[in-house]
Amino acid sequence: MECSWNDLVAGTLRREPRCLAQLISRVEDREAGWQEAMKALFPHAGAACLIGITGPPGAGKSSLTSCITSSLVARGRRVGIIAVDPTSPFSGGALLGDRLRMHAVATTPGVFIRSMATRGTLGGLCQGARDVARILAAAGHDIILLETVGVGQDEIEVVKAADLVVVVCVPGQGDGVQTLKAGIMEIADLFVVNKADRDGADVLVADIRAMQALTADDRRRTAPVLETCALTGQGVEALVGALLGPATGSQRGGTRDEARVREEILTLLEREVARLVRQRWDGNGTLDDAVQRVCSGETDPYSAAQTILRAVDLVP
Amino acid sequence: MECSWNDLVAGTLRREPRCLAQLISRVEDREAGWQEAMKALFPHAGAACLIGITGPPGAGKSSLTSCITSSLVARGRRVGIIAVDPTSPFSGGALLGDRLRMHAVATTPGVFIRSMATRGTLGGLCQGARDVARILAAAGHDIILLETVGVGQDEIEVVKAADLVVVVCVPGQGDGVQTLKAGIMEIADLFVVNKADRDGADVLVADIRAMQALTADDRRRTAPVLETCALTGQGVEALVGALLGPATGSQRGGTRDEARVREEILTLLEREVARLVRQRWDGNGTLDDAVQRVCSGETDPYSAAQTILRAVDLVP
Repeated sequence: MECSWNDLVAGTLRREPRCLAQLISRVEDREAGWQEAMKALFPHAGAACLIGITGPPGAGKSSLTSCITSSLVARGRRVGIIAVDPTSPFSGGALLGDRLRMHAVATTPGVFIRSMATRGTLGGLCQGARDVARILAAAGHDIILLETVGVGQDEIEVVKAADLVVVVCVPGQGDGVQTLKAGIMEIADLFVVNKADRDGADVLVADIRAMQALTADDRRRTAPVLETCALTGQGVEALVGALLGPATGSQRGGTRDEARVREEILTLLEREVARLVRQRWDGNGTLDDAVQRVCSGETDPYSAAQTILRAVDLVP
Repeated sequence: MECSWNDLVAGTLRREPRCLAQLISRVEDREAGWQEAMKALFPHAGAACLIGITGPPGAGKSSLTSCITSSLVARGRRVGIIAVDPTSPFSGGALLGDRLRMHAVATTPGVFIRSMATRGTLGGLCQGARDVARILAAAGHDIILLETVGVGQDEIEVVKAADLVVVVCVPGQGDGVQTLKAGIMEIADLFVVNKADRDGADVLVADIRAMQALTADDRRRTAPVLETCALTGQGVEALVGALLGPATGSQRGGTRDEARVREEILTLLEREVARLVRQRWDGNGTLDDAVQRVCSGETDPYSAAQTILRAVDLVP
């Protein structure tokens, strides 16, 4: 028997992991009533700090996330982790997820890990991450770590939802400039050079500082550059100290930032309308006809889409 | 003075680079009349083969694309290149684009390079790439190379629009499995181990073959694994031979594949409706009020979005 939304919301507020997990899945699937659940949880989701952890593949983000989590738990914090894995478009699941690497922390009390299938989220990856972060916050996690690969555009958008963004890079991975390519550099509140025991760590730190010197943005120019080695734990305590430091507090105000709220409402509107469009036409005779006419060479996809839009007068 | 759509379409069909470039920009910007231009070009866009080239950052995709292009040009082909760079969300441009690396081929007659700003495309990255590929095809390019970073979900979606997908990987970049993470493996029609002169190339080839053995999909299991070194040109001729071989022809039929056409029409519908939503509410008083009420803690974004949707009865 399926739990009701009310039961799930109550269970989530009581911090019951099974309710929490089920609630997240059903909100991600946009099951009827999801908005009511989010509305009920929203007033309880204000206190958490959302920290984005991003960087190129292979930078050791998962291992570092594990280290940060252990340190936070030792300091008495409850930690939620949102791992955004690119999923297979065919199998619907990651071949080898970061979950394997996170085994040690996954079983720690006070830690909840959620792997987000980037395609499975009907509300869009960005809104999906915002929703999950709020649900985790409502379940009493005071720090939410949002781990994403810092390459895709969607993934960069996701991490912009965070209160504080940590960009992880690693020496000896192609040329330093390329791995810190456009988009990533600009969103960093804090840089971490991981695997700092490797050759080239000093050069990478110098490269980052050189790039910082080129920016006109004060916040970017003064973003700290820390060195860690997730394998040995070196530098992790200093990093966690920086994350919990006064800088974090000042970022937090951003959660209610007008521009972000505006963007979120527009995204919710767009997505809802797009969902209704898909729901109405997918599997519908009008669309089937259009597909046939394009396949037979009678028309093109642009004309077909315009004809459908005009025919139903969806948009006056 | 701005050219008319008719002039741009005619110029594109006459293969004039300036018309082509302007037409692409205006279609990307979804300027009024863009659909008419695409409709006019569509019948001329059928013959090109769209080859996706993807892989992790630093795998040498741009250098390899340059080599492939030179080889194709030497064989008398006209080549269009679409480079999908993640752009900075702040500056609006890539810090160091792949264009620098492509300098040599950029000046070759018969080659046209288009760098796509992933954020600048109002129709969505995936549809944007489809549009640009069709425009390049209509301008007489018979091979279109679509280069994307194979990490982000959007980027993987983009490359699925191709008739043939080449996945480029490189030895010694983190663990082999991680760089070939979920999503990438499954879309490959052909694997290239680039920088094959490096240590670990043989191990990587073996890893790929081992992963292939695990799949139930015949096409995936038999995808060739080639070795190249873009720096010396080693293996490039064999790769180009494979791309132009019979396998390419058999993939081509997919262009008119029903599922793809259906997805494209739905995407065009969704995007158009979403664009109209944003156009109507952004900067509008109703939205401003909603933003204020969320910021003051009076309501939440979910309620605000629902209220707006209901108030205007956009969707019956």
